[in-house]
Amino acid sequence: MGDPVSALWADVEAIRARNPLVHNITNYVVMNTTANALLAIGASPVMAHAEEEVEAMVDLAAALVVNIGTLSPHWVRAMERAMRRAAERSIPIVLDPVGAGATRYRTETVRALLRVATPAVIRGNASEIAALAGAMVRTRGVDSTIASEEALDLARALSGELDCVVCVSGQTDYVAQGDRIWTVRNGHPLMARVTGMGCTATALCGAFLAVNPDPGQATAHAMAVMGIAGELAAERAEGPGSLQMRFLDALYRLSQSDVRARLCME
Amino acid sequence: MGDPVSALWADVEAIRARNPLVHNITNYVVMNTTANALLAIGASPVMAHAEEEVEAMVDLAAALVVNIGTLSPHWVRAMERAMRRAAERSIPIVLDPVGAGATRYRTETVRALLRVATPAVIRGNASEIAALAGAMVRTRGVDSTIASEEALDLARALSGELDCVVCVSGQTDYVAQGDRIWTVRNGHPLMARVTGMGCTATALCGAFLAVNPDPGQATAHAMAVMGIAGELAAERAEGPGSLQMRFLDALYRLSQSDVRARLCME
Amino acid sequence: MGDPVSALWADVEAIRARNPLVHNITNYVVMNTTANALLAIGASPVMAHAEEEVEAMVDLAAALVVNIGTLSPHWVRAMERAMRRAAERSIPIVLDPVGAGATRYRTETVRALLRVATPAVIRGNASEIAALAGAMVRTRGVDSTIASEEALDLARALSGELDCVVCVSGQTDYVAQGDRIWTVRNGHPLMARVTGMGCTATALCGAFLAVNPDPGQATAHAMAVMGIAGELAAERAEGPGSLQMRFLDALYRLSQSDVRARLCME
Repeated sequence: MGDPVSALWADVEAIRARNPLVHNITNYVVMNTTANALLAIGASPVMAHAEEEVEAMVDLAAALVVNIGTLSPHWVRAMERAMRRAAERSIPIVLDPVGAGATRYRTETVRALLRVATPAVIRGNASEIAALAGAMVRTRGVDSTIASEEALDLARALSGELDCVVCVSGQTDYVAQGDRIWTVRNGHPLMARVTGMGCTATALCGAFLAVNPDPGQATAHAMAVMGIAGELAAERAEGPGSLQMRFLDALYRLSQSDVRARLCME
Repeated sequence: MGDPVSALWADVEAIRARNPLVHNITNYVVMNTTANALLAIGASPVMAHAEEEVEAMVDLAAALVVNIGTLSPHWVRAMERAMRRAAERSIPIVLDPVGAGATRYRTETVRALLRVATPAVIRGNASEIAALAGAMVRTRGVDSTIASEEALDLARALSGELDCVVCVSGQTDYVAQGDRIWTVRNGHPLMARVTGMGCTATALCGAFLAVNPDPGQATAHAMAVMGIAGELAAERAEGPGSLQMRFLDALYRLSQSDVRARLCME
Repeated sequence: MGDPVSALWADVEAIRARNPLVHNITNYVVMNTTANALLAIGASPVMAHAEEEVEAMVDLAAALVVNIGTLSPHWVRAMERAMRRAAERSIPIVLDPVGAGATRYRTETVRALLRVATPAVIRGNASEIAALAGAMVRTRGVDSTIASEEALDLARALSGELDCVVCVSGQTDYVAQGDRIWTVRNGHPLMARVTGMGCTATALCGAFLAVNPDPGQATAHAMAVMGIAGELAAERAEGPGSLQMRFLDALYRLSQSDVRARLCME
């Protein structure tokens, strides 16, 4: 248990063995990508967004992923219903506030969703988390060039304010569960040239939350697996097209020795 | 004609020669994937879902593919209008009841669509077909771990009840046209780790229906081509990412000798 | 400046240096593909279609891409609002009239969008541009088998009528800015077997318009880069699946010597 590699690997094996159903209400751009990533790691993705069925689908799921990347009012209503139901059933929720801070509609939508239910995990980049922290903690504005230390402070503050895990991803990923902090330094710069890598990280958080009751650790594991698969893919990639393909292969083929050789998590 | 390889190959050559327009009203997850598969086999895909234009688009098409993977009321109304028009114009319809049985909304939507028009072909996995058979034939419930023989019985019963071809795909694919049965044993397990492979099979059924007036045979041919292309792709794939890429290449490069070497259809 | 290779390469370097934000309101089929192409060339894509936020997103963007590939009324209203705002802010607009001429709804939607604002560039295939020219110039109908010379005449006529750049893409691409004409003969036939290559060309036009104030030259540059990346990808592709992957790699790795060796633009 004290061994981080073994703890992470236990989650991967649990996902591969149980194939947890992960219900995604996510954006049009990444639906295919995130479904494929969930399948590659061993989970079972379902995408469903109609108000007529989101509650029934949540009831079947082991985790709910909500991502506002291409939102519109009909989708937001479905997100609210799904999150409320998930909270009632104690099904863990991951929220990806894509573009929070870029438009008022996105920032306000995230605030409205947070009034409906507290997610187990919020994962965003530094700008998005800063926008939420600015809105919720009222201490900072939006800034797209945020230093790592500042990102960590924001994550910690938002985690305390909302009482949920907050993950700020970037070159270094920080996961804050109150004052408990995980730092993950896996990954490769080419990943930033493939659309939806952040959304894929969020979806993987859903798979790990489905098998690990410790949301902070589950999130750190998901981020580390993202980064390690990205490193493995980048070794033989010739650009972002082949990186995307090899990333799915790497998730599928990931071995405990890959994790042991590469894990950079504190 | 008696030679199954020649009959299948005649369909492939007809698709490549005529580039039939296949109108898809399908789900967000697979739109790109199924459009690419249709292009790779030689058909011409079009995606259109607005009520304002689905009838006009159906009028231009050689086949209509309806897939409820990410449904919502506006899309269902468009599906109904498109199916009604296709039936009036004798344009063959393929229906993919994605997730039937998982939520009541999906099961009821499929039933509503079946009241509008009878498709030439329904293609689903065993659980989905069981859900429809349970709803229509009132003999079975939903079960995701259905034995092959049972899947065949379900397909035959539903085909008789609805008077259309029913295809249950899985490790073995069964195509039932009343009591006439095709069994296809092509394919590779890694295909199940790529999202939308079932939806792609449904889309290919549309292309084969566009050139072959025998809907049972057209469906069996489509399933065999799926499976053979999947086998060819899997030979050199390192995981689901490269399988997906190589699958499109294999569809595009498929030769009669590939079919002769691999076809496993009775 | 007189050297076409240097002029084109200056645009590529500007995109890579500035990472211009390109706001896309585009179709479901190609969202992932076009976002990845924009990232590969060095731009920063955002997809947003809600009426509640399109104006705020336009305000952040260096170019607006509007593509009617999978339109519906809610999306059309958002396109109108975004185009009106972009015109007010002098943000260049690229319009892709996907399927104009195929259904009345598409043709009329494009006409309505053109009444809202004049794009900097319209890019379509010969049939689509003919449909617009028929509707606007009232001289021609829709024809999917249009000879190259006729395509050029159509582009020139529509450009004069609308006072914007018109690009007709095909085996040869023509860009008309009134009587000024660019002819681009780069590309590879296999590109036509990958869905969304035309939409990707349109998206790249957005990236080039964001850094080059001459819309005709920017469009010609975008079409040449598309074609050259397609040629590079086709050299090692085994079919449309690997072409799509290698195309993104080629956009990302594109060098000035690639352009010098291959540019075929007059």
